[in-house]
Amino acid sequence: MALVAAVRGPVRVLLRAGARLPGAALGWTERAAGGGDGARRFGSQRVLVEPDAGAGVAVMKFKNPPVNSLSLEFLTELVISLEKLENDKSFRGVILTSGACPAGGCLVALSCDYRILADNPRYCIGLNETQLGIIAPFWFKDTLENTIGHRAAERALQLGLLFPPAEALQVGLVDQVVPEEQVQSTALSAIAQWMAIPDHARQLTKAMMRKATASRLITQRDADVQNFVSFISKDSIQKSLQRYLQRLKEKKG
Amino acid sequence: MALVAAVRGPVRVLLRAGARLPGAALGWTERAAGGGDGARRFGSQRVLVEPDAGAGVAVMKFKNPPVNSLSLEFLTELVISLEKLENDKSFRGVILTSGACPAGGCLVALSCDYRILADNPRYCIGLNETQLGIIAPFWFKDTLENTIGHRAAERALQLGLLFPPAEALQVGLVDQVVPEEQVQSTALSAIAQWMAIPDHARQLTKAMMRKATASRLITQRDADVQNFVSFISKDSIQKSLQRYLQRLKEKKG
Amino acid sequence: MALVAAVRGPVRVLLRAGARLPGAALGWTERAAGGGDGARRFGSQRVLVEPDAGAGVAVMKFKNPPVNSLSLEFLTELVISLEKLENDKSFRGVILTSGACPAGGCLVALSCDYRILADNPRYCIGLNETQLGIIAPFWFKDTLENTIGHRAAERALQLGLLFPPAEALQVGLVDQVVPEEQVQSTALSAIAQWMAIPDHARQLTKAMMRKATASRLITQRDADVQNFVSFISKDSIQKSLQRYLQRLKEKKG
Repeated sequence: MALVAAVRGPVRVLLRAGARLPGAALGWTERAAGGGDGARRFGSQRVLVEPDAGAGVAVMKFKNPPVNSLSLEFLTELVISLEKLENDKSFRGVILTSGACPAGGCLVALSCDYRILADNPRYCIGLNETQLGIIAPFWFKDTLENTIGHRAAERALQLGLLFPPAEALQVGLVDQVVPEEQVQSTALSAIAQWMAIPDHARQLTKAMMRKATASRLITQRDADVQNFVSFISKDSIQKSLQRYLQRLKEKKG
Repeated sequence: MALVAAVRGPVRVLLRAGARLPGAALGWTERAAGGGDGARRFGSQRVLVEPDAGAGVAVMKFKNPPVNSLSLEFLTELVISLEKLENDKSFRGVILTSGACPAGGCLVALSCDYRILADNPRYCIGLNETQLGIIAPFWFKDTLENTIGHRAAERALQLGLLFPPAEALQVGLVDQVVPEEQVQSTALSAIAQWMAIPDHARQLTKAMMRKATASRLITQRDADVQNFVSFISKDSIQKSLQRYLQRLKEKKG
Repeated sequence: MALVAAVRGPVRVLLRAGARLPGAALGWTERAAGGGDGARRFGSQRVLVEPDAGAGVAVMKFKNPPVNSLSLEFLTELVISLEKLENDKSFRGVILTSGACPAGGCLVALSCDYRILADNPRYCIGLNETQLGIIAPFWFKDTLENTIGHRAAERALQLGLLFPPAEALQVGLVDQVVPEEQVQSTALSAIAQWMAIPDHARQLTKAMMRKATASRLITQRDADVQNFVSFISKDSIQKSLQRYLQRLKEKKG
């Protein structure tokens, strides 16, 4: 359950335009590391931040049980925590950690610079919207296509595939799969590579890579929200979602 | 000689706008399976359809000897057969089977959702237009690029490469290579994955993936036809085609 | 140190619009081959051309010590040499050879049709601009993305990665890695594949593949030059470049 990458671009644009955090890295883990040297933990109920100002890196942990749902409250706390770090010049990178990443959780991971996944079949990653009878938004699609290419994205999105670690690595959804106990240390090694590059050059390069995708989202944001609300409110779609939840319950029970 | 995928998008747009068939799957085989349970075969001279209404799947076989040329007659019959299935709510998927897929045959395969190829060196797949001294249309190029990426598409199109099974799998032109006798059963297993997804979600997702490519074809369709006719009528191009056919004859003779 | 590919598109557009050379192939080597049969060498101080009119191929060697810097003088000589070959109907292909290809050298390689790299850790290839504190222009980015895909290009550009041979092959930056003494012969075999295709079909196909990228460069050329000059003239950027050069010196010393 480990994923290392820098949160940038689409996901930030979604939350708030104009993010300035030089580099945010995403680490995926459930085992919380005991706060680093001189770390003063902060954060809200749902997002725990362990800053290591000396290293210029903060580790951010999602704590929204049972499944880290991306509720409005959670996303608001996430944005506030990222803004705090952005406004503090002593931080140049962030490692985000989580325990599972279907749908929106996968998008957060894809928005980062590098992804590390723990080698445990419990941790799958993917955009499984069609399995629920709904459709991934175009900006989820664009971001997935940027990461794994058009053909793999088409198959993954049509079938709503959730990839276990080995397959996620193979298709390019994650950059590394490591034993669970090495997730945190691997994330720290990975982020060091990004921090070895002059910030201004890396940021402008990243903006160049993601500009088209981010601009498309910004331009069509309002229309996309309206489409989604109208789609999700339909009786037939609500029934489709209920069927999916019912099947989930039956699996567990 | 097996290929499984759902015919959608470009190839349908070419034939007739507004196709509604939920899922068409393409299986590539020469060995005709004896009609399934309760199947009432229909179809024309050149396209044989073996419907299995119970399973919601039809198997469609190309019978246009000697090489399944995509003549106007053949394409018309193909469209009529697909429309029949689209208008019959008991069908949700189609498996197309053929024996070879250079040029236009490759495009039909690429337009499907999944491709299975029999592990037999006789069955090659690719867009070999340059070998004949002609140029693949832009919408063949777009579809190939969507499937195997820009670099591999550039090399394949410049050299007019026909890929034998192992290479086709490696470059991503097909999704599976199986022994010849397992083509049909593999196609049925594959299409079951697509049919496990709610139709509306899968269809909207597919349309989202292929919209840009299909729109570009529709917009430029008339200009493309005129360009092609004017190009193919040139003396120099006709001579180039004759040279290629002559070489083919010499190989056989 | 060998790379085989045909110089086309972006790099030519940069230098001069309207290039007509049917096929230019790029071979990367330091070991100069003793002039071929009946070769009359020509070329300038910095670009040595060994034409083999019988085969229709010329080998072009970069001789701009110590590191084949792409100075105005060098690029001018390169263009003049290519034009000479373009205007001579007996030539259909060019093999370019060089000894190293960071930054601009990498773009020259990417602009070719095929790339061969000698299996020697001394020869790396990549766009390492961010390491110097500068940013690869958008048309470097477009060309890299066409070659290795969006995700790999983003990581490579952000980190300014220089790939050693095995990694360059893995990521798709080069098409073949061979022992140093086989670079030249491999390049000749590779270019023969391209020359087996009718020139008009191959050229039109190549133009179709690269048109979008080349048009974008042509349209934004003046703005890009102005942006670059203004960026590179900044004090902070000049200091960043000085730091990089200082580190290079310290490494050597």
